[in-house]
Amino acid sequence: MDSPEVVIDARLTGLEATFHPRSVAVVGASPWQYGAGGAGAGYLRALQEMGCPAIYPVNPKHEEIEGFRCYPSLAGIEGPIDHVVSALPARAVPGLVDDCIARGVRTLHLFTAGFKETGDEAMEEAEAAIVAAATSAGIRVLGPNCMGLYVPSAGLSFIIGFPTEPGPVAMISQSGTNAAEFVRSASRRGIRFSKVVSYGNAADIDESELLEYLADDPESEIVACYIEGVKDGRRFFQALKLAAAAKPVIVLKGGRTQSGQRAAQSHTGSLAGSADIFAALCRQTGAFQARNVEEMADLAVAFRFGGRLTGRRLAVVAGGGGVSVAAADEIDEAGLACPVLPQATQETLLEFIPAAGSSVRNPIDAFVGFDPKRLGDTVRIAGLAENIDAVIVQVDFSSPGFAMSPLASEPEKAIGALVDAIILAGATSGKRTIIVARPALDVEAVRHTVIFQDRCWQAGLPVYPTVGRAAASTAAFLRWNDGSL
Amino acid sequence: MDSPEVVIDARLTGLEATFHPRSVAVVGASPWQYGAGGAGAGYLRALQEMGCPAIYPVNPKHEEIEGFRCYPSLAGIEGPIDHVVSALPARAVPGLVDDCIARGVRTLHLFTAGFKETGDEAMEEAEAAIVAAATSAGIRVLGPNCMGLYVPSAGLSFIIGFPTEPGPVAMISQSGTNAAEFVRSASRRGIRFSKVVSYGNAADIDESELLEYLADDPESEIVACYIEGVKDGRRFFQALKLAAAAKPVIVLKGGRTQSGQRAAQSHTGSLAGSADIFAALCRQTGAFQARNVEEMADLAVAFRFGGRLTGRRLAVVAGGGGVSVAAADEIDEAGLACPVLPQATQETLLEFIPAAGSSVRNPIDAFVGFDPKRLGDTVRIAGLAENIDAVIVQVDFSSPGFAMSPLASEPEKAIGALVDAIILAGATSGKRTIIVARPALDVEAVRHTVIFQDRCWQAGLPVYPTVGRAAASTAAFLRWNDGSL
Repeated sequence: MDSPEVVIDARLTGLEATFHPRSVAVVGASPWQYGAGGAGAGYLRALQEMGCPAIYPVNPKHEEIEGFRCYPSLAGIEGPIDHVVSALPARAVPGLVDDCIARGVRTLHLFTAGFKETGDEAMEEAEAAIVAAATSAGIRVLGPNCMGLYVPSAGLSFIIGFPTEPGPVAMISQSGTNAAEFVRSASRRGIRFSKVVSYGNAADIDESELLEYLADDPESEIVACYIEGVKDGRRFFQALKLAAAAKPVIVLKGGRTQSGQRAAQSHTGSLAGSADIFAALCRQTGAFQARNVEEMADLAVAFRFGGRLTGRRLAVVAGGGGVSVAAADEIDEAGLACPVLPQATQETLLEFIPAAGSSVRNPIDAFVGFDPKRLGDTVRIAGLAENIDAVIVQVDFSSPGFAMSPLASEPEKAIGALVDAIILAGATSGKRTIIVARPALDVEAVRHTVIFQDRCWQAGLPVYPTVGRAAASTAAFLRWNDGSL
Repeated sequence: MDSPEVVIDARLTGLEATFHPRSVAVVGASPWQYGAGGAGAGYLRALQEMGCPAIYPVNPKHEEIEGFRCYPSLAGIEGPIDHVVSALPARAVPGLVDDCIARGVRTLHLFTAGFKETGDEAMEEAEAAIVAAATSAGIRVLGPNCMGLYVPSAGLSFIIGFPTEPGPVAMISQSGTNAAEFVRSASRRGIRFSKVVSYGNAADIDESELLEYLADDPESEIVACYIEGVKDGRRFFQALKLAAAAKPVIVLKGGRTQSGQRAAQSHTGSLAGSADIFAALCRQTGAFQARNVEEMADLAVAFRFGGRLTGRRLAVVAGGGGVSVAAADEIDEAGLACPVLPQATQETLLEFIPAAGSSVRNPIDAFVGFDPKRLGDTVRIAGLAENIDAVIVQVDFSSPGFAMSPLASEPEKAIGALVDAIILAGATSGKRTIIVARPALDVEAVRHTVIFQDRCWQAGLPVYPTVGRAAASTAAFLRWNDGSL
């Protein structure tokens, strides 16, 4: 994929400046060596891939790393240095702060760990001293102990392989792994990102400031947060309220239990508050709580691809009796409805669906999933029913039905025909289509599922792995849409 | 895979005879044609693959189907006909019953649908008349409206691609799709089967009789049930109690909600009882309730590969801070414990795990997952701690860590070395190892995950997709083990 053209304005201020550096220096960069550090090299590769306008490795021991000219210190770099990534050990950071002040750096991102989260009082003090020195000189500090920024529109990234094109979803995360997992899994369902911030110990830039910024950020239409602890409860409540009033905000709380809170303290030095208080906070502000990263991705998909859906009455097209019963249960349990289709609709469906061994009442239990004509007809006819607001279509490429279909000899063409039929059916009925692509069990089925899924989200359709997760997320989307939280 | 040698005893009685036919006739068999019937052909292929001792297609319109000699009627077949699969339309079944009586058939399996589940009174009466005619002549009826039997030790199957080797897990299911999904997904985690019965409308052979049989069946050590409705509540309660006292019984109830109950009625003509009553029934009898087929597979894995585990104190090896916090939360939420490792254990781990950016308190948040030596050392050292009963190891082949490891150039060898290190570590510490293999996101990562997963279950290790599901299932296993339900 080509990297986007990155154009950075030198006059930006506040976090806007942090998100749009004209150049990035990676201090402590070293050539990649597995199991022996070299995180700096990972940043170089990720920044290059994302199209960062200027990348400067800094390490007096090397003249060149990963094909980049390497500098002995910040002082030797010509041109402005807006953003510094520190991959140095903790003890070397105070010296780096001095260098940053000397060069007028805007933001110091401390990938460096080993501060407050160690539980060591001296390191907690060292963290505070570093932040005080930097911020009093006008430098913002991100971290320590975090992966930093993924801002595709500004050419920033912290892991290779993230999408280079930007999109409307923002994420702030106290865990770099969770941020990466969210980006990697949600991007496979069509989610693209405005700003992703892994902010670790939050010694300076913290969850409240980030939420205040994102509440107003026109590039961010949906905000996801992974939070272990909150620095200032009152300010956080106000910031969450502000953001959640402006756009859908999804919150995943880490450290809900005693063991989880202890782990959070080892992780980011966070004092994780009570799970109950956090749940109440979400209810009061209108934020949506997710239980894990998977659910967070589901909600992002629902808000991103929810479309014009306004009603809660679903038709389900899913071959298999047990599957259909489960779908009906899960739709009811999510607070949505799965009404009986009108008699006329049922009769139209029975013109090409055999009565024996099938059901056309809703869920529609009929093996039409791998026949573009019959699948399209079924989705269209169900969507045209006056008591239906949206149609869920479930497909499972692990099922022998696909291997046995006449289209299996040309799977890519067949999958294209299926998606075309689904799109056309939705366009004709004017009702929303929601896709459920069951997780595939073997390599070949995964290949087919990925092709199918990509085609679906490219057409603007929401994709989920199960009917239960589709229903729960759709219910959240509808609560957002009509404000009835 | 080679089919097993199938040896059938002619003197078997009761359901034992149903499960061990000397021959199978498939009446209404026709050559496979996608979307136009031909289910009979599917049975022929599945039976052949499973090593069925004698297979007779019956259809006056064909002389040969799928390479088998085809017979015009049951009358023309030489030798005993123990089991008949009907793929005929409903109207032709009464005639078939007469033919079965004439040939002394033991079991008539009606794949044929279109009876009671249609809601049509005439068809409900037809179903009753067929069953009365057959049973009064000593023929057992399976179904109608079901997929029938998968009994690998007897050479029976209803879908191609099921494992040919038998194992200790039984399943009874009112849905053929759910039975197939359970077999296909659980078998990829090492589950093998004694008897799987898709029994549909349960007009004769029903859930209670099957449970009574399985309670005593020495080939079945674990029993899974998918049930929509129960014919005789009192008998079912007794049967479930009997089975659940003898072995772990997992129950998935279809039709928990109003829409689900309606769907169940369309599916198998079942009057699904209240979800609350069903939950109470499980609590009283000691059966384990699953919420979906995935959870049913998790529980089967826990009971099958639980091993000697007796305590609930887990260590977790999972790189990533957010992942570690989530693991601790999910372990606590499952009622298990994630205790802080003893000081001496932490110090031993810190000899090769860097303090900065890691945690060795538990969860062990360190990137050791793709280095056999360091992974093995970590699992062994954690397992040797006196306050740990089992070690959860989480691996994610979608993470860039694997692609960047020096072993990535020879993935199969690398994965073998990882599994060997894990096995050796568990053998040395004497503590149970529980594997979490995260669902992979792309085709190559799926290939690696499948290889890893296969190697793990072949070594007798339980494999789950998330720490949360591992913890919940392990908690159920421990409840079974110490009887504290």
